[in-house]
Amino acid sequence: MIGAGNVATHLGLALKESGINVMQIFSRSVGSARTLANLLQANFTTNIVDVKSDADLYIVSLADQAVKNVVDKLNINDALIVHTSGSLSMQILDEVSVNVGVIYPFQTFSKSKKLEFMTIPICIEANTFENREKLSRLTGKISNNIIEINSEKRKYLHLAGVFASNFPNFMYSMAEDILAKNELPFDLLKPLIRETAAKIKGLSPAEAQTGPARRGDDQIIKNHIELLDQFQGFENIYRMISDMIKKKQHE
Amino acid sequence: MIGAGNVATHLGLALKESGINVMQIFSRSVGSARTLANLLQANFTTNIVDVKSDADLYIVSLADQAVKNVVDKLNINDALIVHTSGSLSMQILDEVSVNVGVIYPFQTFSKSKKLEFMTIPICIEANTFENREKLSRLTGKISNNIIEINSEKRKYLHLAGVFASNFPNFMYSMAEDILAKNELPFDLLKPLIRETAAKIKGLSPAEAQTGPARRGDDQIIKNHIELLDQFQGFENIYRMISDMIKKKQHE
Repeated sequence: MIGAGNVATHLGLALKESGINVMQIFSRSVGSARTLANLLQANFTTNIVDVKSDADLYIVSLADQAVKNVVDKLNINDALIVHTSGSLSMQILDEVSVNVGVIYPFQTFSKSKKLEFMTIPICIEANTFENREKLSRLTGKISNNIIEINSEKRKYLHLAGVFASNFPNFMYSMAEDILAKNELPFDLLKPLIRETAAKIKGLSPAEAQTGPARRGDDQIIKNHIELLDQFQGFENIYRMISDMIKKKQHE
Repeated sequence: MIGAGNVATHLGLALKESGINVMQIFSRSVGSARTLANLLQANFTTNIVDVKSDADLYIVSLADQAVKNVVDKLNINDALIVHTSGSLSMQILDEVSVNVGVIYPFQTFSKSKKLEFMTIPICIEANTFENREKLSRLTGKISNNIIEINSEKRKYLHLAGVFASNFPNFMYSMAEDILAKNELPFDLLKPLIRETAAKIKGLSPAEAQTGPARRGDDQIIKNHIELLDQFQGFENIYRMISDMIKKKQHE
């Protein structure tokens, strides 16, 4: 396991729980390496030249910018090597081995929150039929939701994830700021946030859309924009998203 | 019950299930009036002058713009009358009765989706102690989450709801558009959307924030903006929200 961040931790734990032996953790941070090694009962190293060369599989789970640099220092005798990035192409691994692939678990990971892995979509890609079979068997042990997606489409999936997760979460935090300024507890929002996410199990987001912009209620939109006066930058976001919602109505 | 829309329907059903008798439904649309009257085993009328004058409570659940106009035609002998709007002040009811209030269930309602009412925050307001007690007793039968909020704060709560619900839902729909154009199924996003909403049960949205803007990963942001070329209006929203996330990091 090359890397000891959020994805490495959650993926490592899921693999271990399914009975797969994680041999060794590499991380430049000794604290992260040791923590994950303890969790997985594995060895660890902070020196890339000490990464063992006899593993069946190398999983590179690093920040995108670090992958190329770290990978080029590995010596793995053409063993199968995969990365876990939504944005990097599979080919970035070509120089270190002739057996390459990708395991991209499509979920948001926080170190402090445990996850049920079995329902998480895991996107796989590999450069040969055999490697694809290997990854499919392996990931099939930790999830019931394996899908094959190439590097080009994976980029778009990653981008869609920003809209489906990072941006909604930031909307929650804007809502929290509005409540905090009015001495109202964030807890008030939790049932609404939960229900909004639950709705799209059975309805498309377009069907589930509600609110002043969806109804074309320009009076409320005007009132809201006045209330946002004291929140820097909020007005622009409110206007822009409301305009998009209205436009979509007339498509 | 004055009105037969989403809120009237869900609130009416919850009241009926808790053993409260809904006498009569008024709606200008005969179809809506009849449907809700059937659900609640109540009478209905489409003529405002036929609204009975001997109810204990009148619940006005109409589009904001319609409230004033409809309410001014009522003759209710100073019975308690409330509206269910997040944006309208309580005082809009002053001319029809000396006993006025608000019952504002803070949730997103769709006619087609049944709800567990008991956890929904219900915000109440009333013009006297006795009226507040009445509303508190009544709403306490359908929810465990009753909170007293005045008209001024309720406006901000309603606004926060747009950020916590309407805008995240629109982000889901933008994500769906990105996937659809790449022939990827929307189902891929469901575990991510569910987990993103579940995260804020235990973490504040600021703690839960992930993604390229949170990490300050300008290379991915640049790549994403290029991918958004073919989606009109998406680039502006992506940029603006990403900039806000970055700024918040440095606060």
